[in-house]
Amino acid sequence: MIDRLIDGIKRKRNPCIVGIDPEWEKLPVCYRSISDHVADCILCWAKDVIDAVDDVVVAVKPQMAFFEVFGSEGIQAHQQTVAYAHEHGLLVIDDSKRNDIGNTAKAYATAHLAKDGPIDADFLTVNPFLGTDSLEPFLRVAEQDGKGLFILVKTSNPSSHEISDAIKPDGQTVCQWLAAQVNQYGVQCMGRYGYSSIGAVVGATYPAQAAALRRLMKEQFFLVPGYGAQGGNADSIAACFNSDGLGALISSSRGILYHYQQVPNWQPDREAYREDVRTQARQMQQDVYAALQMACDQLSY
Amino acid sequence: MIDRLIDGIKRKRNPCIVGIDPEWEKLPVCYRSISDHVADCILCWAKDVIDAVDDVVVAVKPQMAFFEVFGSEGIQAHQQTVAYAHEHGLLVIDDSKRNDIGNTAKAYATAHLAKDGPIDADFLTVNPFLGTDSLEPFLRVAEQDGKGLFILVKTSNPSSHEISDAIKPDGQTVCQWLAAQVNQYGVQCMGRYGYSSIGAVVGATYPAQAAALRRLMKEQFFLVPGYGAQGGNADSIAACFNSDGLGALISSSRGILYHYQQVPNWQPDREAYREDVRTQARQMQQDVYAALQMACDQLSY
Repeated sequence: MIDRLIDGIKRKRNPCIVGIDPEWEKLPVCYRSISDHVADCILCWAKDVIDAVDDVVVAVKPQMAFFEVFGSEGIQAHQQTVAYAHEHGLLVIDDSKRNDIGNTAKAYATAHLAKDGPIDADFLTVNPFLGTDSLEPFLRVAEQDGKGLFILVKTSNPSSHEISDAIKPDGQTVCQWLAAQVNQYGVQCMGRYGYSSIGAVVGATYPAQAAALRRLMKEQFFLVPGYGAQGGNADSIAACFNSDGLGALISSSRGILYHYQQVPNWQPDREAYREDVRTQARQMQQDVYAALQMACDQLSY
Repeated sequence: MIDRLIDGIKRKRNPCIVGIDPEWEKLPVCYRSISDHVADCILCWAKDVIDAVDDVVVAVKPQMAFFEVFGSEGIQAHQQTVAYAHEHGLLVIDDSKRNDIGNTAKAYATAHLAKDGPIDADFLTVNPFLGTDSLEPFLRVAEQDGKGLFILVKTSNPSSHEISDAIKPDGQTVCQWLAAQVNQYGVQCMGRYGYSSIGAVVGATYPAQAAALRRLMKEQFFLVPGYGAQGGNADSIAACFNSDGLGALISSSRGILYHYQQVPNWQPDREAYREDVRTQARQMQQDVYAALQMACDQLSY
């Protein structure tokens, strides 16, 4: 799966992805008024976002929480969004941050990643709090079905240090130890470009830590949230990449999806909204690509 | 919400709850053959489990992963299971171990706990890996809508020590620090029995740590998984209780739901299955109650 991701990054010259976060009160009125069924409105909006960016980005990242809040109809819209993204040649990173133990973890892995599961995403974000035995069922499904994972290592929020900076008996921080685990897991799922399908979530808001984690996980892709709205910018994300300009996926959601709200009194129609989403996604690509050209001496695309 | 829980424990003389984990290949054949729609089979089974235990236990704990694996139809069955449990006077602990940051955490809290959300559970399990700011949206919904949380502090699996035993800069383990946080959060949601609606998940498999955590969280309820199938027994769970016999909910899933598989070549019909589930739930109640009578000098029920 990592090879398809890298092929797409090279072809589109873009390591950026767009989140699909249907926050109801932020959606343009033109979508909220489409149907009495909220799920239909959301699906229509999500399809328009995909149409707007499908030749700009390599992947989209639907955020499960914003679908789950609409119950089973929201979950159906999520499944249809994933299928629509696939039809449009996009990879799907299912941002659900799931985890549990034993058979329960296996059920989550099947639900989100398995080829014969209801979602069939390409990558899944996973929470490591319960320890390595809780990660194994996800690794097995990823390996069997050729899928990928992004394991939370260092998130972008202010409190992320509270647990990730705690010290293990051997002197490593939890964060460093997780990086070593991810590195080790990665060996089983290496692709032809020398990168693994097992990656890490590393926030864009802590560039120094991101640089240190980059050195600990050379063959891993980082999923980097927090670009734009959360305070990360093109310079702070350069530390997440290797010198070939690979090794990171930069994700933006609000900064692209709800940019239209920054224009006073603007309620765009669907065409204008798609155009705005596309423009913002293009702008992000240009900003990140320019930062990579400055920072990477061996940019491979 | 904690007062309703305690009233039920006292009335039924039972601090035990039953998990609702629809693992398809373990369901008796009589349920798997009810319909071509898997979700209908599961809902029928879940209703039978609720019918079997509704006068024995105070609450049921549907495990979201086992519904999620069936996609949107599974989620609908989950919502209907929660509604059915409520109709039968049971409280519902939604075991979803959710978390994320900011608006995403708020969306999960709304989806699972909010009164006007699609699930409207009474308690939710929450993963603390992302730190205290990620827990706040859940605490707000719990406080506003009179619901409760169980925050993962020490889980029952072999790897649970890997992160929870790491040391914070002040010398506390992550586990102890989490206990202090839960204790502090609890102050805002205290009930009339002196217990809080904000509790902790503490595994039954580590009795010494459970006893230490009990001392750190005197006013919190522990949700204690791992009874039966995972190796916890009636003696090991006594450490999770206060001397009044309150302060813990002991959960069993497989040991009750799939006990029938321990009888060679038995494929019970629905009536026999309900009877078996009821017998196992009663047996667990008697075992745990006997252990509490031995261990608690001030048993309050």
